[in-house]
Amino acid sequence: MLCSKYTSMSELVNYCLTLSYEGTAYSGFQIQENALTIQEVLETCLEKLFGQPIRVTAAGRTDAGAHARGQVIHYFASPRIPVERLPYALNGLLPKDIVVTGSCLEKDSFDARKNALGKHYRYTVDNGKFPDVFWRRYAWHLPGHLDLEAMRSAAALLVGEHDFKGFQAAGGCVETTVRRLQEVSIRREGQLIHFSLEGSGFLYKMVRNIVGTLVDVGRACKGSGDVLEIMRSRDRKKAGVTAPAWGLCLEEVFY
Amino acid sequence: MLCSKYTSMSELVNYCLTLSYEGTAYSGFQIQENALTIQEVLETCLEKLFGQPIRVTAAGRTDAGAHARGQVIHYFASPRIPVERLPYALNGLLPKDIVVTGSCLEKDSFDARKNALGKHYRYTVDNGKFPDVFWRRYAWHLPGHLDLEAMRSAAALLVGEHDFKGFQAAGGCVETTVRRLQEVSIRREGQLIHFSLEGSGFLYKMVRNIVGTLVDVGRACKGSGDVLEIMRSRDRKKAGVTAPAWGLCLEEVFY
Repeated sequence: MLCSKYTSMSELVNYCLTLSYEGTAYSGFQIQENALTIQEVLETCLEKLFGQPIRVTAAGRTDAGAHARGQVIHYFASPRIPVERLPYALNGLLPKDIVVTGSCLEKDSFDARKNALGKHYRYTVDNGKFPDVFWRRYAWHLPGHLDLEAMRSAAALLVGEHDFKGFQAAGGCVETTVRRLQEVSIRREGQLIHFSLEGSGFLYKMVRNIVGTLVDVGRACKGSGDVLEIMRSRDRKKAGVTAPAWGLCLEEVFY
Repeated sequence: MLCSKYTSMSELVNYCLTLSYEGTAYSGFQIQENALTIQEVLETCLEKLFGQPIRVTAAGRTDAGAHARGQVIHYFASPRIPVERLPYALNGLLPKDIVVTGSCLEKDSFDARKNALGKHYRYTVDNGKFPDVFWRRYAWHLPGHLDLEAMRSAAALLVGEHDFKGFQAAGGCVETTVRRLQEVSIRREGQLIHFSLEGSGFLYKMVRNIVGTLVDVGRACKGSGDVLEIMRSRDRKKAGVTAPAWGLCLEEVFY
């Protein structure tokens, strides 16, 4: 991410933060009534530090229970806290499941959501006979044989620019459902299988629906032909189950 | 571990289990009054399954908050549950932070503690500027420069048969404080540093005291000479701080 020195003389400056969080205890990133969210906890701490109500904008929402290693947010506030001390000050106030890992000042025109050029998500499946106790909050436990080569072949069909409407959950409302996936890689590490997805943008629950479908391919319940048919028909009902949120992590946002 | 078919005709059989657990919520393995322990939770579930009170013996105790990937226990019970179904039955009853990963029947003479020939412990330090949120329960966050080569040189002095009394916490009471360390290796993985210790046996808090001392070496607060002096003098006060329990994991027991 480009970190520019703040030079403007306006009253408010544009703070940009990178944060990681374990989403287990939260109803997702985005603020909502009657449910605890990352955004609410973060904004409460920011208000304590800056002495004014603060509204942040995130690169992307994350689902209830999903995690982030490199979420990016921005907000305008009076330049009350030196930007290099901000992570230490915030981490002292935040609960231990939210950690600020970087901070900088951006130009007024910078927008964490609108300027994002791409995102990298990781989805982890625990393919062990019994769950790895240390990954139980971060991986979907799915014992039984999974054919990695079959999943890789099907994943390769998703790379490039396609209409991903068939992988969009109901409730998504966007102008276009065409997105570009740069990479879908699948790597085994012991009993874990990591799915890495990098793309220009992602539809609502798209990563989880893609992983659910690829897992069906790995179990020989679906084939590469089915993946092509989901894309051609744009029919969500043809895709696999939505993989559970706790296996998902927003790794990085590209600017 | 040797898994022999049960052939004796006695009423009770010797069940042997391998288990992993996240120790965060527990006051260690060993049962005690007024505190929740792994042993108590495990024995309660075993009693439900076998319909009789059961007392287990573990390869080794683990400290409050410390973890295990390969703890081994044995107990005698009537052969009521087929041994291959036991992990599934137990995991259905156990809380999610304790997972049985293996089971077998052993000869009556097998004792999980007395027959252990060695153990492998891993201690993880999180050396990042800010804590890795996903490792906060499993690693000791220690920012700042750590000289890996200096730590490795000091660690090499510990390998072999030595009197480790200087690394034993007060409260340990054993016949001899001589132990044999087969290996002490130190590996960096991103912002994490993993200490791997393999030995014939370990004194009370010995791994945590060794890691605390090696970290002092890594920060240039101690040198290899100090490590030799701790061993020569057998004086605990000369060693470093006791590294916190949550970075420690009993990886494997050798038979």
